[in-house]
Amino acid sequence: MLKLYYSPGACALASHVALEESGATYEVVRIDLSKGEQKTPEYLAINPAGVTPALETERGVITQNAAILAFIAQTRPQQNLAPVGDPYRMARFNAFNGWLGSSLHPALGRLLFSRPALEGDARAEAVKVVLTRLQLVEDGLLEGTWVMGDAYTLSDGYLMVFERWARLNDLLDPTRFPRLNSHLDRTQERAAVQRVLAAEGLEAV
Amino acid sequence: MLKLYYSPGACALASHVALEESGATYEVVRIDLSKGEQKTPEYLAINPAGVTPALETERGVITQNAAILAFIAQTRPQQNLAPVGDPYRMARFNAFNGWLGSSLHPALGRLLFSRPALEGDARAEAVKVVLTRLQLVEDGLLEGTWVMGDAYTLSDGYLMVFERWARLNDLLDPTRFPRLNSHLDRTQERAAVQRVLAAEGLEAV
Repeated sequence: MLKLYYSPGACALASHVALEESGATYEVVRIDLSKGEQKTPEYLAINPAGVTPALETERGVITQNAAILAFIAQTRPQQNLAPVGDPYRMARFNAFNGWLGSSLHPALGRLLFSRPALEGDARAEAVKVVLTRLQLVEDGLLEGTWVMGDAYTLSDGYLMVFERWARLNDLLDPTRFPRLNSHLDRTQERAAVQRVLAAEGLEAV
Repeated sequence: MLKLYYSPGACALASHVALEESGATYEVVRIDLSKGEQKTPEYLAINPAGVTPALETERGVITQNAAILAFIAQTRPQQNLAPVGDPYRMARFNAFNGWLGSSLHPALGRLLFSRPALEGDARAEAVKVVLTRLQLVEDGLLEGTWVMGDAYTLSDGYLMVFERWARLNDLLDPTRFPRLNSHLDRTQERAAVQRVLAAEGLEAV
């Protein structure tokens, strides 16, 4: 059975939502980042990089949200969770997810999770970077009401993670980011997303 | 025809090598990062994120090395540039590339390209992060003599980019990182890689 290692509310939420949307049978293992459980020898044997998510399959472990989302979509093509039959469209899906992981996530992570917390000019600069990247999604990266156009894909659940972090930290001004706010609301209304939020002990924000 | 927007020696080198390894017909357009050419209105119309690489196809633009590498491998499966027929193995390939883009690249980028340059404790901390991540590849992420085991894949050309940056900055101690040094040497010996280095005006390091 598929087994997902996750930490509540962290970016592994994207993979958790993907599993739930796919209808796959899976179990989850909670890794408490605040207790450093991602650095225990037991977890490092699963993911040597010491981060979540990690998806244990019967053949081995897959890491990185973008890779996990593509895997889930490709192994359950009848669910239409990504444009799996079209290499060009699939590349666009992968590119969006890759940008989230390599650009939006690090920007938000630096602002929200640096220890010691950023202050003064460093904090102001980090806020500016985050807002610039959110603006890029708002203005240019969404192909329609959903990331890939008219239909929900697993990219939407991934984007939701960072929209949640942004809203929880007063970074998602509805006047400046109307599309992102609408996207977040619609994504959190999905039944599969609501089940996953409840399973992680979270609420819609 | 495929058209790659790249900056010499920057991470787009991975996509450039991938195109050359694939035997595809393509052209390249040089974007000079030192002149800010990635932020011109013309280039932002191609990639709103204002970074390289971007691959223009007859259907539209693909960004992000990991997405471009998977696309090239999937559209030329006879070249065996990635395990394209196997979703699990393909996910491992994508995960490695995703880790390079979201973990090793930002760590090296912060150390080498921060302006103003890092100094003192900030620089020492950045060096430590880079060495820790290189060590992770050295000790755990390579499946064999190549990233995916016994056969070269497009992940190897991507890893080479960061091994080059590391060696050029005295971060790739041969005693500490024998596998990475050997990997870099073998990758740079490939005919396709040598053609691409020459095309970008670079030399093996």
